Amino acid sequence: MKDTLSISKWLIRALQDAGVQHVFGIPGDYALGLFRDLEASSLKLVNTCDEQGAGFAADAYARVRGLGVAAITYGVGGLKLVNSTAQAYAERSPVIVVSGAPGVGEMHGDALLHHKVRDFGTQMRVFREVTAAQCVLDDPTTAPREIARVLAVAKDSQRPVYVEFPRDCVDLPVPPHAATGLEPRPQAEIDSAALNEAVDEAVAMVNAADNPCLLLGVEVHRFGLQDEVVKLIAKSRIRFATTIMGKSVINEELPGFVGVYAGSLSNEMTRSAVEQSDCVISLGAMMTDLNTGIFTADLELSNMVQAQAETLRIRRHHYPGIDLKSFIDAFTDASLRRRPALPASYHAGGAAFTPDGDRSISIERVFECLEARLTEEVAVIADPGDALFGAIDLTIHSRTEFIACAYYASLGFAVPGAIGLQMAQPNWRPLVLVGDGAFQMTGVELTTAARYGLNPIVMVLDNCGYGTERPMLDGEFNDVHGWNISALTDLIQSGRAFDVEDEAAFEQALETALSDRDHIALIHVRLAPDDFSPALKRLTGNLKQRV
Amino acid sequence: MKDTLSISKWLIRALQDAGVQHVFGIPGDYALGLFRDLEASSLKLVNTCDEQGAGFAADAYARVRGLGVAAITYGVGGLKLVNSTAQAYAERSPVIVVSGAPGVGEMHGDALLHHKVRDFGTQMRVFREVTAAQCVLDDPTTAPREIARVLAVAKDSQRPVYVEFPRDCVDLPVPPHAATGLEPRPQAEIDSAALNEAVDEAVAMVNAADNPCLLLGVEVHRFGLQDEVVKLIAKSRIRFATTIMGKSVINEELPGFVGVYAGSLSNEMTRSAVEQSDCVISLGAMMTDLNTGIFTADLELSNMVQAQAETLRIRRHHYPGIDLKSFIDAFTDASLRRRPALPASYHAGGAAFTPDGDRSISIERVFECLEARLTEEVAVIADPGDALFGAIDLTIHSRTEFIACAYYASLGFAVPGAIGLQMAQPNWRPLVLVGDGAFQMTGVELTTAARYGLNPIVMVLDNCGYGTERPMLDGEFNDVHGWNISALTDLIQSGRAFDVEDEAAFEQALETALSDRDHIALIHVRLAPDDFSPALKRLTGNLKQRV
Repeated sequence: MKDTLSISKWLIRALQDAGVQHVFGIPGDYALGLFRDLEASSLKLVNTCDEQGAGFAADAYARVRGLGVAAITYGVGGLKLVNSTAQAYAERSPVIVVSGAPGVGEMHGDALLHHKVRDFGTQMRVFREVTAAQCVLDDPTTAPREIARVLAVAKDSQRPVYVEFPRDCVDLPVPPHAATGLEPRPQAEIDSAALNEAVDEAVAMVNAADNPCLLLGVEVHRFGLQDEVVKLIAKSRIRFATTIMGKSVINEELPGFVGVYAGSLSNEMTRSAVEQSDCVISLGAMMTDLNTGIFTADLELSNMVQAQAETLRIRRHHYPGIDLKSFIDAFTDASLRRRPALPASYHAGGAAFTPDGDRSISIERVFECLEARLTEEVAVIADPGDALFGAIDLTIHSRTEFIACAYYASLGFAVPGAIGLQMAQPNWRPLVLVGDGAFQMTGVELTTAARYGLNPIVMVLDNCGYGTERPMLDGEFNDVHGWNISALTDLIQSGRAFDVEDEAAFEQALETALSDRDHIALIHVRLAPDDFSPALKRLTGNLKQRV
Repeated sequence: MKDTLSISKWLIRALQDAGVQHVFGIPGDYALGLFRDLEASSLKLVNTCDEQGAGFAADAYARVRGLGVAAITYGVGGLKLVNSTAQAYAERSPVIVVSGAPGVGEMHGDALLHHKVRDFGTQMRVFREVTAAQCVLDDPTTAPREIARVLAVAKDSQRPVYVEFPRDCVDLPVPPHAATGLEPRPQAEIDSAALNEAVDEAVAMVNAADNPCLLLGVEVHRFGLQDEVVKLIAKSRIRFATTIMGKSVINEELPGFVGVYAGSLSNEMTRSAVEQSDCVISLGAMMTDLNTGIFTADLELSNMVQAQAETLRIRRHHYPGIDLKSFIDAFTDASLRRRPALPASYHAGGAAFTPDGDRSISIERVFECLEARLTEEVAVIADPGDALFGAIDLTIHSRTEFIACAYYASLGFAVPGAIGLQMAQPNWRPLVLVGDGAFQMTGVELTTAARYGLNPIVMVLDNCGYGTERPMLDGEFNDVHGWNISALTDLIQSGRAFDVEDEAAFEQALETALSDRDHIALIHVRLAPDDFSPALKRLTGNLKQRV
């Protein structure tokens, strides 16, 4: 006979069963009962400084562990998560947003309860726009199935979902007759004739090509298809690039890797490897503007196979209803022409860095130094801007250790994201790359890292403003009021700070940070305001035409 | 012949004509053209650290000046403003949210442009839930009228509105034949017979009463009816209280003021003055949970007249279609029985404060000291929690100099709000009252105060966590990682910091801060974790029953 659990404890057990170990959030009076139960459970509750931080942390956590949870209160908590949840939707990160809410017994008429906006449905309607499924846990008979339903949607679609939890329902016991699981749902049958036709066509294209190339995207990671893709490469010996969003989706040191491809953002070698290929097979790659270097990708559709989560396109025609996994499996099993041995990885050469005395540090040299010094234990998490663009050619030593919001591109993601990243994988040490503008948005979340004993290395690339925008259209509005960033460690009473202007000091700070695993390291890298990476210069030249 | 203006310049001129002098925001590539034009105009652009700060600053600005503007980019900017805009909606603050957006020419098909969520309509649909009107400036022929329409809604409803501005439309010239203004709209005629009936009934109730009392709410301020209310009091000599949301709506030192009434939150004198009145006329007061001390207000409906912005209720019946201004005007003009001379204001006594040597500072003594020391030039802005509850009995020396989000109650409002407040009224010096939890959310916006030469006094009431929640239900989730708050002035490279634990040091810090108008003052007030104001103890006793 099973125990009688409250709805709240049922939710907690369902999250645990789904592999969740941490919940990020901030309490409020509409969520206190839930927080009491979370604290009493074996889930670890992680309080952030602001709800925004919890949202970004849960997003990064979900990318690493397959599911993340943010728990907050109604209105003032929930509505602060709209942006981070929108990012999770856009970039396919399965975040469960659990929001406390006024009790069912309080929501009569139009009672003016605090944190209410227009009516009690406002928050639900807002979250319908940025999540793939929603539920209200207001009935103990249906709550277990509702929980199972939204968790299944999150897993299947790799999108965020929303759970609203009226506070007077938290302790309601789930009755023995409650339907607790999902009935097996009718699965859409794959059209095997269509699949065969598509695979035959793709195989014919590839086998006829002299230098085919795979282009791997983030969906390969989200749908857990990395092993399948590695097998395909091993069998066919076709070279591969990744998109920016898909960077590190499989090990970048594997033979055949030609680099991160993003149109004019990429280095010349990678660009020509992909664009001069006579057959590009993109797998799980979203053709976003940043992935394509603001649509500068010079790819000939007549030579392309594009398999995505829910769509398959060959040249200019579509095969509806063929999913990514089915295609990859069937394609791998088909009679693919085996190529000669794969070339060594783009990254195989190894890199050296010798600091040039007191030469001012530049963004280019920052990344050269990182390339030479980073080790396997370091996971890179980059904010949008040059922190990201400069990083695309960094060698990432195993899979999934590079995290960025390379499509939705919300500034301020990386510092709180590093908290989620390290909670999800305590063996990894996060290296945060963040600009000075983004750091002013969420940098104080280092407080949370201090509170829970994490040890990220945070490198603030300070070019005195929103550097990505300057080449497009400049004005005082791109300036940021200068921070003495080192003082943040005094404010949060934790961590070691470094303030560097030249190459020697930069290298020394990085080495000290890497060798001291007991502290947060905060490195203030003072760059010239007009110091842009070559990739950013190429990109913004294109962006400028659109402003 | 009028000049040809671009849509962007037309928008700027319309904002200027409406009395706006400042715009709060953060640029992004979808908004750069707009920011270029804002910077070139006579509007002052105020860059905040995070979009959330811009939203709160614009909200406070709107409360003081009658209209506020937040300008941001699409998605990553706009969706960060959902919470602050929801607050502006709930508390009737006319904020104009202007969001950059992808160009009309870019939004073909389902192009995957950065910052996009589900489709290009997501952000618009979200803002429909938290604003009173919306428009897209994608047509130069209709744009001037659309601008006029949403500004009129903001003014008339005292609610936020949303303007979406595709970046390729910013420079489009408004053609000479464009309809530029609003045609006179048919006005709903007031039903004068109903008004007469209602006023007769109200007058009969008031004149028959021995000790009537007015209860003034925030809508008196929002709809500019302060002079009318002062006239009513002078003529009738009826005493008055205000709600928390309505605190300082008219000068608290006027004769007849009996204090801020909020059920069990109020002091005993105010509570009995209102609850023992045999006729309470509430004007523009929203009967929210916090305004009524979580519904502990013991008011007898049979003795009440409740006039609000759009509704009038006498005892238990409603008069539809009678607005607040019409009622106040007709009521004032009616034959009201004139009372004997009004008693002196509740605040008339004056207060003294003598620090007790090295006695630890308590929340109660903080407010006693403030009561004794605050001058006319100080405008108080309080975050939710004891910063607000402790402040309800503070004497505010003239109207509108007390700002708080006493209904929607979003933590973190006060520091960025102070920026909006002082930009709106440079003669006022903001005194920010904020808890340590809220300060970690938005305290770094002091950076913005430093950048623009403002001089707020920020008092962080540090009780080591979310103090309001502890009496309801406590756990580690109510703890906040301790900050050495003084170090923030080093971080932002501006301001004077004080770190105080005893009464003498507190008083000294306050006096130094008040006398030094050249610097931001940041006072870290170290309180005991179990130090609650008497009002908070009474309130949370009631809240606890609902958790």
